[in-house]
Amino acid sequence: MAERGPGPHRPVRVERWSAGRHEPADDLVAAEEPLQIVLDGEPFAVVMRTPGHDLELVIGLFFAEGLITDITDLAAVGVAASGIPDGPIALSVHALAEAENLVDVRLARPRPADGPVGWQRNLVAGSACGICGAAALDALRQDLAALPPGPSFSWRTLAAMPLTLRAAQPTFELTGGLHAAALFGPDGRLLRAREDVGRHNAVDKLVGAALLAGEMPLRMQVLMVSGRTSFELAQKAVAAGIPLMAGVSAPSSLAVHVAHTFGLTLVGFLRGDRFNVYSVPERVADL
Amino acid sequence: MAERGPGPHRPVRVERWSAGRHEPADDLVAAEEPLQIVLDGEPFAVVMRTPGHDLELVIGLFFAEGLITDITDLAAVGVAASGIPDGPIALSVHALAEAENLVDVRLARPRPADGPVGWQRNLVAGSACGICGAAALDALRQDLAALPPGPSFSWRTLAAMPLTLRAAQPTFELTGGLHAAALFGPDGRLLRAREDVGRHNAVDKLVGAALLAGEMPLRMQVLMVSGRTSFELAQKAVAAGIPLMAGVSAPSSLAVHVAHTFGLTLVGFLRGDRFNVYSVPERVADL
Repeated sequence: MAERGPGPHRPVRVERWSAGRHEPADDLVAAEEPLQIVLDGEPFAVVMRTPGHDLELVIGLFFAEGLITDITDLAAVGVAASGIPDGPIALSVHALAEAENLVDVRLARPRPADGPVGWQRNLVAGSACGICGAAALDALRQDLAALPPGPSFSWRTLAAMPLTLRAAQPTFELTGGLHAAALFGPDGRLLRAREDVGRHNAVDKLVGAALLAGEMPLRMQVLMVSGRTSFELAQKAVAAGIPLMAGVSAPSSLAVHVAHTFGLTLVGFLRGDRFNVYSVPERVADL
Repeated sequence: MAERGPGPHRPVRVERWSAGRHEPADDLVAAEEPLQIVLDGEPFAVVMRTPGHDLELVIGLFFAEGLITDITDLAAVGVAASGIPDGPIALSVHALAEAENLVDVRLARPRPADGPVGWQRNLVAGSACGICGAAALDALRQDLAALPPGPSFSWRTLAAMPLTLRAAQPTFELTGGLHAAALFGPDGRLLRAREDVGRHNAVDKLVGAALLAGEMPLRMQVLMVSGRTSFELAQKAVAAGIPLMAGVSAPSSLAVHVAHTFGLTLVGFLRGDRFNVYSVPERVADL
């Protein structure tokens, strides 16, 4: 049985079958555990996630849903000691017990009784649920601004990213069970990568890390994800100011729609030098 | 730009790149659209899903979350005309306008003010969010019963399922962008398959169809999914009485934990005659 604890994977005992023969074996699976988010003293959400970078996850999720626009919107947070970032951050962080599986957030200002996406509600977010909680179609985020034109990225930069991302997925290599997301500079350099059982969690962790590092908006960066691109991922990219999002696999129709609406360049089926551009193709340069 | 409308895919115009050259092309993407669920006259949830089998999706979701245990718990539902099943069903269904993108559900009995998973809340469910809405860790379903022992399935039955599932994924073949789930009989016969941008939606559609057809619980059936297996998929399988769930890819640690706890046989990395069994291996027979 999979043990609970810190870290991105868990040991399991399996029966391994091949051509009708089978034998017991040791294996590793990706860790999926609930994280309780407490906001201003009240239960806010339970998110299924891979442990690690929990503070970044919560900050990125709050940003993606429009609850905060900046680190200064947070008065203080509590997180397990292992989840406190090493570097200097402009935020008051206190350590909780490791076993808590909890992030405790205090906002700097009182939030509206019923914000733009229905903050009165509690929720449990499944491992790929990024927009849980609102009550109606029109509660999807309407407050996002269109991205400005530019910059452009060489097709060679895009073509090199999948191999770089793969090399930055240590837990996927061990378990086959994690999504990955990474931010790249215009020169194709890998800036930051995160893994999670939930593909939107991996993106929230990236954006949360950028917020903590004071790097927002991400106007010169490319976001790459290891799988498909959905509506919610496109919305997260636009919110962070990211001009180009690429996925190894297919986009959904609503991801394409969001990309057109907000001027996001959406790239799909990125597998080496073959890929499709679904929107704003002028950001991909043929040199 | 992707058009809205019925059906599982949408035409898009793409710029197709290969080795630095590019040209415009027509392509298809998987449809992802919001479905509003109204419960007893009030907005209940917005679910991102691939249009089609919407009634099955909502019934399967309500069942998975413990809101209903049987079709008789529903007094009436309204759904777009194209979503009304052909066969005889023991349920009052009225047709809504096609453009509504709405399922309107009336329960036969008043629901508790605050049910086991927090039914007071509204939610928007992302395309892989199956357990949205509860307020705390202990709100995850505690009311499920362990599966009884048996039956067993030949390894040959399992080994043949991936090719059969692939053949039952017409929209994946066109778009590369849909998850699939299917139920198989003990002889390996495909009983029912569904596709969706959300992997849990595909399972909810299968279970909803079984509820409408009066086939529950599914004690002699195998559930196969095209991707990874998470906590929420394992919980949905247990709720439906399914004894064995297999995925093409990896399980998460919490999926393995749920499988052990409730006696579900969990199979992963099912690729022809090679696969791993993570729990209750005695249901896989070597003949």
